[in-house]
Amino acid sequence: MNTSPISGMQEFLPGKQAIFNEIKSKIAETYQKHGFLNIETPTIDRSEILFAKAGGDTEKQIYKVVKTEETTKDADQALRFDHTVPLARYVVEHESDLHFPFSVTQIGRNFRGERAQKGRFREFYQCDVDVIGRNTLPIYYDAKVIACFYDALKTFVKTDIKIRISNRKFLSGALEILGVADKTKEISHIIDHAEKVPAAKTVEALKELRLPEETVVKITTFINTHGDIRELEKLDFLKINIAAKTSEAGNEKLSEGLGELIAVMEDLKAYGLGDAAEIDLKIVRGLDYYTGTVFEACLPKYPELGSIGGGGRYENLASHYTDQKFPGVGASIGLSRLFFILSENKLIDSAERKPIDIAIVPIDADDAELRTAAYDLAKNLRDGGKNVEIVLAGKKLGDKITFATKIAGSGIIFGGDELKSGKYQIKNFTTGKQEPLSLK
Amino acid sequence: MNTSPISGMQEFLPGKQAIFNEIKSKIAETYQKHGFLNIETPTIDRSEILFAKAGGDTEKQIYKVVKTEETTKDADQALRFDHTVPLARYVVEHESDLHFPFSVTQIGRNFRGERAQKGRFREFYQCDVDVIGRNTLPIYYDAKVIACFYDALKTFVKTDIKIRISNRKFLSGALEILGVADKTKEISHIIDHAEKVPAAKTVEALKELRLPEETVVKITTFINTHGDIRELEKLDFLKINIAAKTSEAGNEKLSEGLGELIAVMEDLKAYGLGDAAEIDLKIVRGLDYYTGTVFEACLPKYPELGSIGGGGRYENLASHYTDQKFPGVGASIGLSRLFFILSENKLIDSAERKPIDIAIVPIDADDAELRTAAYDLAKNLRDGGKNVEIVLAGKKLGDKITFATKIAGSGIIFGGDELKSGKYQIKNFTTGKQEPLSLK
Repeated sequence: MNTSPISGMQEFLPGKQAIFNEIKSKIAETYQKHGFLNIETPTIDRSEILFAKAGGDTEKQIYKVVKTEETTKDADQALRFDHTVPLARYVVEHESDLHFPFSVTQIGRNFRGERAQKGRFREFYQCDVDVIGRNTLPIYYDAKVIACFYDALKTFVKTDIKIRISNRKFLSGALEILGVADKTKEISHIIDHAEKVPAAKTVEALKELRLPEETVVKITTFINTHGDIRELEKLDFLKINIAAKTSEAGNEKLSEGLGELIAVMEDLKAYGLGDAAEIDLKIVRGLDYYTGTVFEACLPKYPELGSIGGGGRYENLASHYTDQKFPGVGASIGLSRLFFILSENKLIDSAERKPIDIAIVPIDADDAELRTAAYDLAKNLRDGGKNVEIVLAGKKLGDKITFATKIAGSGIIFGGDELKSGKYQIKNFTTGKQEPLSLK
Repeated sequence: MNTSPISGMQEFLPGKQAIFNEIKSKIAETYQKHGFLNIETPTIDRSEILFAKAGGDTEKQIYKVVKTEETTKDADQALRFDHTVPLARYVVEHESDLHFPFSVTQIGRNFRGERAQKGRFREFYQCDVDVIGRNTLPIYYDAKVIACFYDALKTFVKTDIKIRISNRKFLSGALEILGVADKTKEISHIIDHAEKVPAAKTVEALKELRLPEETVVKITTFINTHGDIRELEKLDFLKINIAAKTSEAGNEKLSEGLGELIAVMEDLKAYGLGDAAEIDLKIVRGLDYYTGTVFEACLPKYPELGSIGGGGRYENLASHYTDQKFPGVGASIGLSRLFFILSENKLIDSAERKPIDIAIVPIDADDAELRTAAYDLAKNLRDGGKNVEIVLAGKKLGDKITFATKIAGSGIIFGGDELKSGKYQIKNFTTGKQEPLSLK
């Protein structure tokens, strides 16, 4: 029988699993330190809830769930494909018991029946933070989410991280000024893909929209604007004055977007992100959903790896389920894919962990006195916080010691002499150094 | 639209989720201290793998998984219904990379389409430990698993716990001696149910098998045997001498089972379980699967709550997938159900947690200087290990403080004066006590 995991599933050996778990814990801890409350929503939810929001490719990728005796037709349940849709349901369902702004984190597995390819998983961990307001949510929460997202990535990514920030309102306003607002969707799509194709392709795609040549030039310049927020001033047609926080272009969306961009950048400085955060007008984050701030993290030294996570501001979390307005801002780390690409590129500390600190090896496991001594010793060490395995199988002492060196960082091998004297030696299997064991 | 979770799903508010998470972490930590290595298997697996093992009611409860455009007929994937089946696949798949005995823990969500009823969940957490041997596995690992299982339960169950232990070989041997081996299956079933029905019903059920009256009496006595292992000597027909570790009844299975029972009880004493572990011949743990030691945990002061977890020894983990022999012993805590019944009976510390330690409230969030000070203060406190939220929304100061008291244990409310002096006050919202904040 084929015992490999299904294609598109991640399955680790214990040593690698330990590294993965360590990263997941660091992310969770960072999120919680930033005041986000953890919740878990069910893996299975009503199809009507999940499909209300999905649309497009996502809809085709949803896994439906049927009990054995049912037929697909009956299937009114499906596996969640992200955390946002169940969160929308959760907020509507539990509204009266929640306190707003609701800072919430979800870390768990989601499912998409994507075509299997390297580094893409059908079951994958997402580590999300969101702040959900009721009716309103101040712009300061955008910076809060970005700062927390950045701090979480910093805990395990061993190279520089850059957060690239743009704003959907700012983009819409600019396109209105250029008189091409009717093509916002098509142009956004081209900008969103600009990084994945040669620059000439982008120009070509813009020309295919039958835009005036000078408009194409302006959009191209817009796309390539990044760095300090003062870079925006170089876009003449927007008439921006960063110091005065104004634009004289007289477009409402642009002004609003500008105000938000400046506020986010200022607060990120206050959070200490400094040069790690920069304006980048190439950032769009897909076509729907986001309505204000959008951001992505990348690794400047490894541009080929692309985005390693991102998020943004949305006007209304739960519009499909309620008339009430819940604006929000969120960030997501796609941990399964990120772990895969960081491992491949040696950008995490990927030395296999030995999750067991100490292996205790009584030289004769069939000797009840030695076993009892091993149990006592183990209890003592566990109470001191150590992970301890006792080696009770294997015929030859050599085999037992080999086993111990494979599973644990250190070992305590002992027999009747040590038992009598109460003096044990602990050996570090990496350094080979042996020293007397000191117990409390 | 109906925004409640699907029936049979557990969904918590953040305060309760925090309690649940705390328990799950304690279990995971205990398992790891006992030397178990964590792995995660995919939620979705091949139907042929899952159905090979299932059988009976379980088979009907398996959730199949289909992509939207597929039909049920194509569905060759399903959701795992326990951790053991994926573990069997994992061990066969990764055998050459594992070290045996393989002490392994899995903590995650499993799925069964059971009829929804109070305290039964269709998506539920199981917290498992298993030790898997290759070809052989010494009996000492049975005690290891039980000791770890007990330690894990002790971390969060606030009442006495009893571990009740029996042995399938011992039961089979006894039934052979009584000359009713051909009815082992039926009698095991009656014993397995003995606790859920009045004693007279059990006698009646045994009589319906047309057993001689004196055999019924002996089986009834057998069923009611529990306590110290010396209780076994009271079963005359088994001719047992605990001190000599022998039976003169001349039945091989009985002798083997006796040897294992004694070994397990002795080692549990050495582990310090003392009176918490007792022989109880009523324990069967269902009909299939287990072949030696079987055990269950219960709460003596709350017998009506029944089993709160258990496990046992199995001869061969992966017989459906390989010819190689992998004997194992495991224990499982069904955390979703257990959390539900313990909460209902107030047997866990169920005071709602406030996962946020400190809420920082700048009196005017629109003042950039106050915000910056709040961010600095938060960073300082987070670096010291605290979970900190900054309150940046809300019009009136009163509203902000109310919000702070709802989400956090303590609060720091400050304005320009505190900023200037650098002297902040921290208020404990539970005691109302306010004191100067000391920062490192």
